[in-house]
Amino acid sequence: MSSVDTQLEELKAEIKSELPADISITDVTYEGPELVIYTRDPKRFARNGDLVRDLAGTLRKRITVRPDPTALSTPDRARDRILDVIPEEAGVTDLDFHEDTGEVVIEAEKPGVVIGNHGETLRRITQEVGWTPEVVRTPPIESSTVSNVRSFLKQEREDRRDILERVGRQIHRETLADEEWVRITSLGCCREVGRASFILSTADTRILVDCGDKPGSDDYPYLQVPEALGAGANSIDAVVLTHAHLDHSALIPLLFKYGYDGPIYTTEPTRDLMGLLTLDYLDVAAKEGRTPPYDSEMVREAIKHTIPLDYGDVTDIAPDVKLTFHNAGHILGSAVTHFHIGDGLYNVAFSGDIHYEDTRLFDGAVNDFPRVETLVLESTYGGRNDYQTDQEDAERKLIDAINETHDRGGKVVIPAFAVGRSQELMLVLEEAMREGKIPSMPVHLDGMIWEATAIHTTYPEYLRDDLSDRILHEDENPFLADEFNHIDGGDDERRDVADGDPAIVLSTSGMVTGGPIMSWLEQLGSDPDSTLVFVGYQAQGTLGHRIQNGRREIPIDGDRVGRSETMTLKMDVETVDGFSGHADRQGLENFVKTMNPRPEKVLCVHGDERSVQDLSSGLYHDHHLRTFAPKNLETFRFR
Amino acid sequence: MSSVDTQLEELKAEIKSELPADISITDVTYEGPELVIYTRDPKRFARNGDLVRDLAGTLRKRITVRPDPTALSTPDRARDRILDVIPEEAGVTDLDFHEDTGEVVIEAEKPGVVIGNHGETLRRITQEVGWTPEVVRTPPIESSTVSNVRSFLKQEREDRRDILERVGRQIHRETLADEEWVRITSLGCCREVGRASFILSTADTRILVDCGDKPGSDDYPYLQVPEALGAGANSIDAVVLTHAHLDHSALIPLLFKYGYDGPIYTTEPTRDLMGLLTLDYLDVAAKEGRTPPYDSEMVREAIKHTIPLDYGDVTDIAPDVKLTFHNAGHILGSAVTHFHIGDGLYNVAFSGDIHYEDTRLFDGAVNDFPRVETLVLESTYGGRNDYQTDQEDAERKLIDAINETHDRGGKVVIPAFAVGRSQELMLVLEEAMREGKIPSMPVHLDGMIWEATAIHTTYPEYLRDDLSDRILHEDENPFLADEFNHIDGGDDERRDVADGDPAIVLSTSGMVTGGPIMSWLEQLGSDPDSTLVFVGYQAQGTLGHRIQNGRREIPIDGDRVGRSETMTLKMDVETVDGFSGHADRQGLENFVKTMNPRPEKVLCVHGDERSVQDLSSGLYHDHHLRTFAPKNLETFRFR
Repeated sequence: MSSVDTQLEELKAEIKSELPADISITDVTYEGPELVIYTRDPKRFARNGDLVRDLAGTLRKRITVRPDPTALSTPDRARDRILDVIPEEAGVTDLDFHEDTGEVVIEAEKPGVVIGNHGETLRRITQEVGWTPEVVRTPPIESSTVSNVRSFLKQEREDRRDILERVGRQIHRETLADEEWVRITSLGCCREVGRASFILSTADTRILVDCGDKPGSDDYPYLQVPEALGAGANSIDAVVLTHAHLDHSALIPLLFKYGYDGPIYTTEPTRDLMGLLTLDYLDVAAKEGRTPPYDSEMVREAIKHTIPLDYGDVTDIAPDVKLTFHNAGHILGSAVTHFHIGDGLYNVAFSGDIHYEDTRLFDGAVNDFPRVETLVLESTYGGRNDYQTDQEDAERKLIDAINETHDRGGKVVIPAFAVGRSQELMLVLEEAMREGKIPSMPVHLDGMIWEATAIHTTYPEYLRDDLSDRILHEDENPFLADEFNHIDGGDDERRDVADGDPAIVLSTSGMVTGGPIMSWLEQLGSDPDSTLVFVGYQAQGTLGHRIQNGRREIPIDGDRVGRSETMTLKMDVETVDGFSGHADRQGLENFVKTMNPRPEKVLCVHGDERSVQDLSSGLYHDHHLRTFAPKNLETFRFR
Repeated sequence: MSSVDTQLEELKAEIKSELPADISITDVTYEGPELVIYTRDPKRFARNGDLVRDLAGTLRKRITVRPDPTALSTPDRARDRILDVIPEEAGVTDLDFHEDTGEVVIEAEKPGVVIGNHGETLRRITQEVGWTPEVVRTPPIESSTVSNVRSFLKQEREDRRDILERVGRQIHRETLADEEWVRITSLGCCREVGRASFILSTADTRILVDCGDKPGSDDYPYLQVPEALGAGANSIDAVVLTHAHLDHSALIPLLFKYGYDGPIYTTEPTRDLMGLLTLDYLDVAAKEGRTPPYDSEMVREAIKHTIPLDYGDVTDIAPDVKLTFHNAGHILGSAVTHFHIGDGLYNVAFSGDIHYEDTRLFDGAVNDFPRVETLVLESTYGGRNDYQTDQEDAERKLIDAINETHDRGGKVVIPAFAVGRSQELMLVLEEAMREGKIPSMPVHLDGMIWEATAIHTTYPEYLRDDLSDRILHEDENPFLADEFNHIDGGDDERRDVADGDPAIVLSTSGMVTGGPIMSWLEQLGSDPDSTLVFVGYQAQGTLGHRIQNGRREIPIDGDRVGRSETMTLKMDVETVDGFSGHADRQGLENFVKTMNPRPEKVLCVHGDERSVQDLSSGLYHDHHLRTFAPKNLETFRFR
């Protein structure tokens, strides 16, 4: 009998002794980090709301209770009872019964109503029918990503359970090492922006944190060295993803091509956004005639192997490692990632990308941990002069530009990243129109922006507190405002917009390197009454950067529109700073200096050479921290 | 056709074009780092002494010329001609013909006479018989180690040629990496003394430097981590050994048990001493009832895979790495190890263990390199107060102790390490007797000391210049002095010595942890006229340390001598400092500060926590170097 089986036998005995005698336990297994308890008496379990909580406290495990299949009423009979119990206002859109595990997935417009006060309604469901309910939100805006992910996971449910059982046994394996140490190896994003990737290793466990591409370059993280995947992709025990931007996520699916078949821990929105962005990554590569490093099958593998965690859930991901995600304020689902190693041995936090101040979309990054000895800190705007314009000033400047353009009868075109900045701008525009600061006019969303927004509305819990409240409890979803229009009619629709009344266009790509923004420039570029407004960072080498710096002759796709191959841009060009998703130098310092307790060591990463050096020496001199500016391919040992 | 084959074809063509038309080239191959040229005209080659040197310069390779087998006279005929050519005073003791390679190994008492002025006699041999001569010294004191190694290598000659050919192709393989970097990973001996081991890695090549045990502990280097052997023992391209002491060499044979089958680069005396010491390591483990980590077969594998290099030979050991050994002054064959990486990319030197000042046995460590950006420096005596007694004072003190003991009619017993310190003491004693500073009396050598001394006399070129001159050119070998007696008659002989006239005994083990020294204590321990003199470091936990610190009740092997199990030491106990094989703090500083150019970075290793920290901060403050005190399992990147 393996050590895990012995462990489960012992747990089963302990659970039986803790529970009232009339509750039978038929099986106890691990599924990923959860301990699953099968009972023939799910209804009795559900009657006492404290039972599961008390058990979880005693066993120090995350616990799921499932009915033994013999204890279930049929789906048909259960369906009616469940719909009776749930108040009609919940807006149930789907019920999906899984007889193998006794789970019923309830999709509803208002999951909170299905859950009830402190889970009261859920417990009533189990008391009535025995089934274990699981609730998901019906996207208020239809999202093909969300619905594809959900139906894919439904279809792969059996495979996924095998994966979870395997991962569960792996997490709870016996440790073999007779000594303890903690190390971080940098595989990318050191003294550069992009290709974020680290190995966090202990004597027992090796965790890959992020695995991104490097925009504007073909460089990957150093996966080929022995301390990365050189000893085989399965020398990695777990992958942890801080957020979905491609410079952190693009090469996660590649790991599965290399043979990795372990878990990916991330938040649920990050899982969906990763699906959206990596599929687009493949699409762009194909359109540009490059061979992508993996195909869409590997994206599906990544999604199938993802174990989503909520902010604040302390989760065992290895015998000696507990993982907790915290809001990072950067994009939807982005996480500051905290690792507790050993039994009080050491604590490491990876900031991922952070925004320290609250924005319209997100609360500011969490920096409150019981203990952190080492912080791995992003440094994108870590340079000594990297102070950003105040967002209030930025909004005023944007509003002025819109009003002036509107007065001239022109259109405002804003190249924007699909995830994060577009939704921030939507909130700015919705409020400005609602409050009359700009005239009400259509805001056209082109490229992946609409889809990304749909994913945001699926996970309102991940948005800023008051925004989430408005959406969940006041039925005021600003993303559903009438002004927003999804461009889904191709160039015909774009031409109509261009020929029509004043309007605002948000379109990808954010750095004018391709995508529908090229069409908008063709349509409106020669109109001197219209305005092109840059709101995001334009990297060296991109067309956006060149236009921002004065270039007006731009290449257009001659074949498609049958015109000459360059055009002269006559529209007004403006730049509005201050909408960054990254903390500026002040924000980074504030993030560190308000930590309590302070970390002993800070590794400054994810910034160009100057930024990491400036931030590293600034934190050392002003805040007396031991700071480092690692190079790629270095290994630091902390204990 | 592989890239190496193409390379060899091109070299063959180039060689033909460089040579006179009447010299035919039949084949060109690599054997280890050497380019071997087969010719049907070995005699013509030999006639022009500059040909090979010029070719080596043009091709920038180490070149060996061998006769095509068809060009050879028979061994019988060749033997007589060779003995005619070599002057009789050379003292030829063996001729060994290898028809497969056309080599003849000449063993002689005076190899210099066989070689002749600038190799003149060797060339004459080839001119006369076509065979390629190779010369080795007949050990002046018979050494079973040397003769075993030589006969083993003779027996394994074919296997060895296969190994060398494989290694040669590996060294000259095409490089694949499209970028360059240089890293050092510490697998042991950081903030501790013992288990020396590092990985030096580039984008193309991984080299293991040393692989030792940790005296007084069961700790091995961290070989199991992915960046060591985790990706398989053959992810290592080459092993380099700085010297034979077990804390650098003990686990080299283990690599072969793990499946390594690449080369070990070291000096010839280090190869032989490694054989002696690792076999003794297995022996001691067996006697103490421990299971040794490998068996003697693996020691033989290590010897078979060794490619010996002389001090100063610049040798290609990988497509992007050149290795050069320099005298380290520590023990016979010990080397400061210099790596030149890439085409001028970077230079790293590992000090190994060093003695900076000249001793009686060795010239001081070489610290003169064209370039060194990073120095990895031993720190055994790096502490702020680690200044050693002057050796002159130490010798005076030792002489006083001997004279006093002699006057009382007692014996002097000196526990000593077999390799290094014993030979240093032999030189001190021989001179003192010759100059009348102490009376002439027998010096008994017990344990492995005699064998280790025999190995020293086999390689006089590795001894201090004037000592080597005395031995080679003045026929004055102090190790052959009449006073020295090899104890080979066991306890009977020891009892006779103990019962006889005043005498000096040098015996292993150096820290009184076992070996014949235990017998000497039993024989002489109760004699108040005799003296026990400690001349070497006594580690915590050893019996030597306890006696040095005043303990007089010592355990003895009751079963063997039939007496009680402890005895009371009544002999005088003295400690004489100043015979260390390690540089003291001043020596380490001198080694670094007289380097020209100075290294940019110094990694202080191989010392306890306090010593490495003291040395690191001392070199930083006083000499303005960037210094580090690495932990085990860290990786530093330099380029």
